[in-house]
Amino acid sequence: MTQVKFDISTSLDGYIAGPDPDLEQPLGAGGEQLHDWVVKLSIWREQHGLAGGEVSADTEIMAEATDGIAAYVMGRGMFGGGDGSWGDEPWSGWWGEEPPFHAPVFVVTHHARAPLPREGGTTFHFVTEGVEAAVARAQQAVGEGDVLVAGGASVIQQALRAGLVDEFQLHVTPVLLGGGTPLFAGLGPDDVQVETVRVVESPSVTHLKYRVVR
Amino acid sequence: MTQVKFDISTSLDGYIAGPDPDLEQPLGAGGEQLHDWVVKLSIWREQHGLAGGEVSADTEIMAEATDGIAAYVMGRGMFGGGDGSWGDEPWSGWWGEEPPFHAPVFVVTHHARAPLPREGGTTFHFVTEGVEAAVARAQQAVGEGDVLVAGGASVIQQALRAGLVDEFQLHVTPVLLGGGTPLFAGLGPDDVQVETVRVVESPSVTHLKYRVVR
Repeated sequence: MTQVKFDISTSLDGYIAGPDPDLEQPLGAGGEQLHDWVVKLSIWREQHGLAGGEVSADTEIMAEATDGIAAYVMGRGMFGGGDGSWGDEPWSGWWGEEPPFHAPVFVVTHHARAPLPREGGTTFHFVTEGVEAAVARAQQAVGEGDVLVAGGASVIQQALRAGLVDEFQLHVTPVLLGGGTPLFAGLGPDDVQVETVRVVESPSVTHLKYRVVR
Repeated sequence: MTQVKFDISTSLDGYIAGPDPDLEQPLGAGGEQLHDWVVKLSIWREQHGLAGGEVSADTEIMAEATDGIAAYVMGRGMFGGGDGSWGDEPWSGWWGEEPPFHAPVFVVTHHARAPLPREGGTTFHFVTEGVEAAVARAQQAVGEGDVLVAGGASVIQQALRAGLVDEFQLHVTPVLLGGGTPLFAGLGPDDVQVETVRVVESPSVTHLKYRVVR
């Protein structure tokens, strides 16, 4: 059975990005630190076409998190930022010629657009009917694989509120950002109940995995 | 050397109490759940003069958290709620004839008052010069013991901002409260830097211990 998941780095005070994001700092002030633990891993670098990097206790977590993911769902901002319209020459996103997904990616947007195939097996599909429709299309696409809701916060929150998420993992980094994008904004006890699946500690990050209870 | 600590249960979305606290629900809507893991333990019940209870993986965490604590600092609300004035007949707090502290407790308040000795070794001292003064007086009182900043959120935040805290532990319960009192409100990267000391998982709560880096 297909599982729908998300997997995201947060600060100790619950933010997935810092204050005042802009083109220079798309993750806001201090937000890059949330990903320090992962971008230094060789497994992450390999997925992004880069050599070198470390093998650590976090490697196994990262391998497990991406293993079996056969399709992705993401918001318009994560695909390519901007004002939400495509313009005359459609913006092909942050992800370059060969995006690291190697799978279909369903982008939730208000602006219809033809699918955008890229090198390496990634095709961006643009879904205008909302998060539920994007997750449903991803599930159809994957067969037996899993669907990762990649972000941003709004798409994750919509997926949680709609009861679409089976499991999630937080990578809690020991930093306070003091503001920014709170992961669970607008969600309360009537929206989501969870139970703990597993906790893994490493020197630079704590991995907390939860199952959504229905 | 005396350590200054705090030790507090939080929701997965970072609140130490739920929305809309009142006399019926001093911890706000849903806030009691944050303490479910501890109030069922025999070690907690014994400290509060109650029989029965469970022994579990959390017992050791609770024993360690209270071991060596020789004085407490708390805010006026945690001592006794109310409007902050003592009135004609000074309110003796939430804690009854024999409070569970068995040690001096320094209450941060704007209203001077003579010390209030209670049974079982607890004496409440009322400090009008702020959190730093309360912590300093607690440190003088304890000699070699540790000082626990018991709460509420405001006193903990003031102690963190003033650089008074050496170590803290969060007991993260797998619930979303969706609002309430955020533990780290108003604190950012310039106020507090931490490193992870230890993570312990149990079925109902995850214990995250951090050291403040100076």
